[in-house]
Amino acid sequence: MAGKFKPPYYAVIFTTKASAENEGYEDMATRMLELAQQQDGFIAFESAKQEIGITVSYWRDLESIKQWRNHVEHREAQRLGRELWYDSFELHIARVESYRSYHR
Amino acid sequence: MAGKFKPPYYAVIFTTKASAENEGYEDMATRMLELAQQQDGFIAFESAKQEIGITVSYWRDLESIKQWRNHVEHREAQRLGRELWYDSFELHIARVESYRSYHR
Repeated sequence: MAGKFKPPYYAVIFTTKASAENEGYEDMATRMLELAQQQDGFIAFESAKQEIGITVSYWRDLESIKQWRNHVEHREAQRLGRELWYDSFELHIARVESYRSYHR
Repeated sequence: MAGKFKPPYYAVIFTTKASAENEGYEDMATRMLELAQQQDGFIAFESAKQEIGITVSYWRDLESIKQWRNHVEHREAQRLGRELWYDSFELHIARVESYRSYHR
């Protein structure tokens, strides 16, 4: 688990506020995770949702992030996100410089 | 809201798996957020928890992150986190290179 994180790599921090509309959202989220995992340069994915949703995906480099952003199925998901599922979102793209983990 | 994010700045991505022990956790989490917001270089804070917890804090630079890491009350919270509240955690420190937001 920990061995996959060897800086430098990139993190995409995607924070969302959901709209009242959630039809189709969970299926799409599941599909996008499945698809992201198949992309070249994908490292890992983490997600949690309470008042806001936070999804962090980790990638080898900016090029793999760009390829994923432009993936045709992902672009359709992005469009539906803006039109239906999100009132607002924020996206931070960041170069990870250090990593550490703790296990009891 | 959006105006506060002007790259470059830093993100600390803290992901956690909670232990069975949560006594004192919520009070400490509330206190740490309150205290973090008072630190020089603090920009923003976001948190959500389901199976895992994801907390992202944003800072002006690595120096402000270091100061916060070494804050005496925060160090005590870190100690209790390792001893009591977390089975495991991961920490990624990353330099944010781009930011965008969407509001419906």
